[in-house]
Amino acid sequence: MLRLNSRDSGFEQAFKRLVADRRESETSVARDVSVILADVRNRGDQAVAELTSRFDAHDLGNDWTISAEVCREAFDELKPDLRAALELAAKRIRAFHEAQRPADRDDTDKHGVRMGARWLPVDAAGLYVPGGRAAYPSSMLMNAIPAKVAGVERLVVVTPTPKGQVNPLVLAAAHLAGVDEVWRIGGAQAIAALAYGTDRIDPVDVIVGPGNAWVAEAKRQLFGVVGIDMVAGPSEILLIADGKNDPEWTAADLLSQAEHDPAAQSILITDDPLFADTVADRIGVELAMLPTARVAAESWNTHGTIIEVASLDEAPALANALAAEHVQIATDDPEALFRQIRHAGSVFLGRMTPEAVGDYVAGPNHVLPTGRRARFSSGLSVLDFMKRTSFIQLDEAALKAIGPAAIELADAEGLTAHARSIEVRLGI
Amino acid sequence: MLRLNSRDSGFEQAFKRLVADRRESETSVARDVSVILADVRNRGDQAVAELTSRFDAHDLGNDWTISAEVCREAFDELKPDLRAALELAAKRIRAFHEAQRPADRDDTDKHGVRMGARWLPVDAAGLYVPGGRAAYPSSMLMNAIPAKVAGVERLVVVTPTPKGQVNPLVLAAAHLAGVDEVWRIGGAQAIAALAYGTDRIDPVDVIVGPGNAWVAEAKRQLFGVVGIDMVAGPSEILLIADGKNDPEWTAADLLSQAEHDPAAQSILITDDPLFADTVADRIGVELAMLPTARVAAESWNTHGTIIEVASLDEAPALANALAAEHVQIATDDPEALFRQIRHAGSVFLGRMTPEAVGDYVAGPNHVLPTGRRARFSSGLSVLDFMKRTSFIQLDEAALKAIGPAAIELADAEGLTAHARSIEVRLGI
Repeated sequence: MLRLNSRDSGFEQAFKRLVADRRESETSVARDVSVILADVRNRGDQAVAELTSRFDAHDLGNDWTISAEVCREAFDELKPDLRAALELAAKRIRAFHEAQRPADRDDTDKHGVRMGARWLPVDAAGLYVPGGRAAYPSSMLMNAIPAKVAGVERLVVVTPTPKGQVNPLVLAAAHLAGVDEVWRIGGAQAIAALAYGTDRIDPVDVIVGPGNAWVAEAKRQLFGVVGIDMVAGPSEILLIADGKNDPEWTAADLLSQAEHDPAAQSILITDDPLFADTVADRIGVELAMLPTARVAAESWNTHGTIIEVASLDEAPALANALAAEHVQIATDDPEALFRQIRHAGSVFLGRMTPEAVGDYVAGPNHVLPTGRRARFSSGLSVLDFMKRTSFIQLDEAALKAIGPAAIELADAEGLTAHARSIEVRLGI
Repeated sequence: MLRLNSRDSGFEQAFKRLVADRRESETSVARDVSVILADVRNRGDQAVAELTSRFDAHDLGNDWTISAEVCREAFDELKPDLRAALELAAKRIRAFHEAQRPADRDDTDKHGVRMGARWLPVDAAGLYVPGGRAAYPSSMLMNAIPAKVAGVERLVVVTPTPKGQVNPLVLAAAHLAGVDEVWRIGGAQAIAALAYGTDRIDPVDVIVGPGNAWVAEAKRQLFGVVGIDMVAGPSEILLIADGKNDPEWTAADLLSQAEHDPAAQSILITDDPLFADTVADRIGVELAMLPTARVAAESWNTHGTIIEVASLDEAPALANALAAEHVQIATDDPEALFRQIRHAGSVFLGRMTPEAVGDYVAGPNHVLPTGRRARFSSGLSVLDFMKRTSFIQLDEAALKAIGPAAIELADAEGLTAHARSIEVRLGI
């Protein structure tokens, strides 16, 4: 754990290093991924089957998909409390995302120029669901529901089933979210199959969802062939807390992020040195109780940071530089600090809003920009599954009003045919 | 030029080939670009200066920027008609994009869960402006104005000035659009400088704008380090026209796209074989009048296509498969066909709406998805320069209402610390 104090002379340098620390895996998989993409593009299903056999130790045979019936059964077999919790989550996520649907535009100006924009969903979306540690039913809901709310007709899940093993919880969530196809494939080969299509698998238009370095690199390389969501990195939280918080709550909040991944990062900014000490101590106590202690301790020891400031007024500037995925503000008047925060994936306001409640049931999406990408990108939304077509309609009077200016500009740019397409209509 | 007829037996195959023809340059520049990016990242300004000297035959010396004064002078020296046309374009583009600004959300549900989203501009945006054939003042307006409407405080233009030559029209447009900095650099090295920052150049958050294969590849490789707009390919138009159109107008429309680039593509779909013949003939007449005939003829001969259909009712399905950047519908009731078009960058409705009027002065953006990317992406908008921060606020009652479901899900996912951060607050 790193301990900083904004009054120390070396603070600026140390904070700069903290901001620059990207925690990305440096594994260079670009070459291997491009070989896999080309292989799947050329040999289709054959390549997918061979790679699945090699990487997942699973022989696809003629059993490439998991049926809707199997997903429904997984849902039916959930114990009642868990099923109710999933249903509540789905309902709240759906409600929040339904209000995200963008409005169409259709206006006519004083010259008679009609201009507008029409939003439509993509035809098909692919959702990558990891097979291992990060296979969460909550992620299935958070990725699939916005696609369905957007109106996507064909929502395709790909998920590796190493040695044939499936995750019933994830299948139950797929049923609840209305997923249309589930394919037992993963890795870069699954992304390639979704992007290019194969004999068995029709291509999709957009691919979203978390994955390992190979999956992320495959998505990056295929950006432009299909639409993709943001490049995702390890999770992070920034807690801004005064000394009036319960150190036990704060320690639990910091560890809830740390338990995700050894590369996850939890940062506490506080103006109370004694509170900082108590939280640091309390982390040890909490860790002793956690089944996830190994991962959480590695994350906290390697990336955990406590920053002591003279006043919490310093916090927004630090938060904006860090542009964290999650920012929790545990003060009496969180709004005062929130107003000054420009860059954050999602903000959790007040002492009774632990980040974890947003991971599951609040409603807003938990797929959020990491690694300082909140400077320029947003959490997943229905917009990731929709696109906008603009339109223009002129009558003769309208073209007479604004056409001559277009001719002037086209001529200045040396684009004579552009000018001429207007001139012939105006009889010039 | 390719001539197809939907009644021919080989039509389906031939149309599939047309859809699959991406017209992208196959130049593999990925390796060279990654070397340049690493060089600029490591050596900063020194690398930028050397690469500019090598590729642009221009010695930057201490003269890296073009001042605001020089841009203002270029604007003041425009002849009055051209200045008025630029001003009209800027005014209309600004008005259309101002209505794109997204609304914030802030709602509280029956449980007392407050949820919302706040949109903010990125701090800084970079705009690539090519130095050669594609350096258009209209593109400067179309890229820069949405950034300024979004509220971007620092808008940075990079543009190569081969042998020191600048384009006064582009500088005039930069002045009009309110660009904050203009750097005389181009190529992958300029993109790297914007993304990583150097001693002279502060980094930006988002990079937009057209460029050659090197620029496009640099943007693709830096996607995630910064936000970028869509990968751009050669321009294209799809014209849907009945036999009642003036063949001269239609020929002019097809050539207005063709003159952009030998790789541009113009496609006509018509239900009138005689009209198709007349347009094909008329193209030759028009070409003889065009100063841009060399490029336009190469594009038309190589990629131009006329598709004859039995009825225009077939057109929307073909248009959706092509997902063209521009779709022009020249019929009496364009709305009837438009309703069935799902995938298009921008649609131009009716006989008096040549695409060129949208390139300059209508108002909607002319930066649009090419190469079938209208299936999943949209034209440039203020949203490309903004990002959304979601937020959540619960009080004790709200946490009591929905917290237990979150605990249930966290436990099911094996994320004990997530559950615990809620349990400690509820005294469980």
